[in-house]
Amino acid sequence: MPLKLTILGSGSAVPNLNRGVTAQFLNFNERRILIDCGEGTQLQLRRFKVKFQRLQYVFISHLHGDHFLGLFGLVSSMSLLGRTKKLKIFAPEGLEEVVRHQFKVTNVYLDFELEFITVKTKAKTLIFEDNSIEVYALPLKHRAECYGYLFNEKEKDLNIDKSRIKEFKLTLDEILAAKRGEDVERKDKVIPNSDITLTPEPLASYAFCTDTSYIPHLADWIKNVRLLYHEATFTNAHLKRAKATGHSTAEQAALIAIAAGAEQLILGHFSSRYKETSALLEEAKPIFDKVLCVEDGQSFHLK
Amino acid sequence: MPLKLTILGSGSAVPNLNRGVTAQFLNFNERRILIDCGEGTQLQLRRFKVKFQRLQYVFISHLHGDHFLGLFGLVSSMSLLGRTKKLKIFAPEGLEEVVRHQFKVTNVYLDFELEFITVKTKAKTLIFEDNSIEVYALPLKHRAECYGYLFNEKEKDLNIDKSRIKEFKLTLDEILAAKRGEDVERKDKVIPNSDITLTPEPLASYAFCTDTSYIPHLADWIKNVRLLYHEATFTNAHLKRAKATGHSTAEQAALIAIAAGAEQLILGHFSSRYKETSALLEEAKPIFDKVLCVEDGQSFHLK
Repeated sequence: MPLKLTILGSGSAVPNLNRGVTAQFLNFNERRILIDCGEGTQLQLRRFKVKFQRLQYVFISHLHGDHFLGLFGLVSSMSLLGRTKKLKIFAPEGLEEVVRHQFKVTNVYLDFELEFITVKTKAKTLIFEDNSIEVYALPLKHRAECYGYLFNEKEKDLNIDKSRIKEFKLTLDEILAAKRGEDVERKDKVIPNSDITLTPEPLASYAFCTDTSYIPHLADWIKNVRLLYHEATFTNAHLKRAKATGHSTAEQAALIAIAAGAEQLILGHFSSRYKETSALLEEAKPIFDKVLCVEDGQSFHLK
Repeated sequence: MPLKLTILGSGSAVPNLNRGVTAQFLNFNERRILIDCGEGTQLQLRRFKVKFQRLQYVFISHLHGDHFLGLFGLVSSMSLLGRTKKLKIFAPEGLEEVVRHQFKVTNVYLDFELEFITVKTKAKTLIFEDNSIEVYALPLKHRAECYGYLFNEKEKDLNIDKSRIKEFKLTLDEILAAKRGEDVERKDKVIPNSDITLTPEPLASYAFCTDTSYIPHLADWIKNVRLLYHEATFTNAHLKRAKATGHSTAEQAALIAIAAGAEQLILGHFSSRYKETSALLEEAKPIFDKVLCVEDGQSFHLK
């Protein structure tokens, strides 16, 4: 399973007893990633049975309290509970300064390294890659410097149809070439790659887009994304307020999804005025049918 | 009712799903007081139905995360939800610096004033009083600079036995003198104060003592306190660990209570190794019988 996303908090601004503030756990090709970390995230990780010592990467969208205030307690708890392995934190300018200052003044010494990678860009930018995934920062439009993050699975070697190895008496070199996507060229014939490899699974991808005003160019940056989380703080009834506060409506989120050709849209970061989410869903659904409003604790998979 | 105490968090170090980290709400003669503010306190206030906009004073014991990290989110939420009234925060040196630095770097502008009063003393010291209560700082012994707080109700005017006003034909001046505790002196006789006033209710008092090693002199500072919260992070089975980490055992908490002549002892700040608290209670009870282990959400009253 290349992707499992667990919603740790789906509310906005002020946490309440039904919805925590923004945090998500993403297991992406066995990379364990925390996206945003509002107050109370360490408890939400426990509640939804995510082992937080195994987290490797944190991506913070912006420095509003409901997106980062849980980080101090989380890393402190990690250290108290014996962590020694480095944690990499991608975040806008300022987070490292705030964390290091607080830890210095309050004499916190962690037993592991915090590595901060400052995200600062005005265009879609690759900020991380390894042999299996790549992560892009997506500058959003909000009252603070704010980034969405796009997680892409990299192209993988093709899988060989085992029955064809015997049939064509494939050599090791030929198998390796086929895995790379090449045809097998022999003196007497060419065996087309598609005759000996299995149809590849579609690559996984996930885009996390919060907090942001409606920015149509965002769709170009996340073309054909398979799973899209887009904030929908309001319905169009509060379009003015959405604009004034740097947020989107459910309709605007759906417009991004359809323009991007997304496979599935999930909405979150709801204003606490929505005691239930049917109005948000009804607004998005006529534009983009494969849409859901998320709840804390809900998980999403890609096959 | 002069005193109502609500336990918002009774655990230590790392919050878990059964116990939040330290925070208490104290309504003391209608002064609305928050004592400590670990991560998640704003949610605990909601959970236990305390209106957090009505809080007037915050007393922070020390700058370990499980005692103050909830403050950033709480005051941010207060501002987002429309607070304009000043909040007074009593805390050791460093908290003001950390809060103001974080708010500056992350561009947080509150719509109300935060007034910090730095607590710095090596002896029991009066740090606040008004016409009805007084608060003392009690320097404790911990790995960080740490204060307990003693809340005393001030002496009040006596209540007059109304049946005696007519009987003795008391004048207004005589009534006022009697309320102040004076005898009524007439040419022909002296009416003893006790003949015309009601027996006063005992004054309320509450001592909050966490986190601390066992310090016997603490009992002298809180003589005859009516309600005593003392940390009991461990049982005596972990006496060494208690000493090493600057904490107390349940027995030591009971020794403080008996030496102080307290009316009731409540224990908290339990290590997460205690899934239930019977061992802590059994250790304290033979020394001091009126003892309880607190739970999140539990309330205590004094008549």
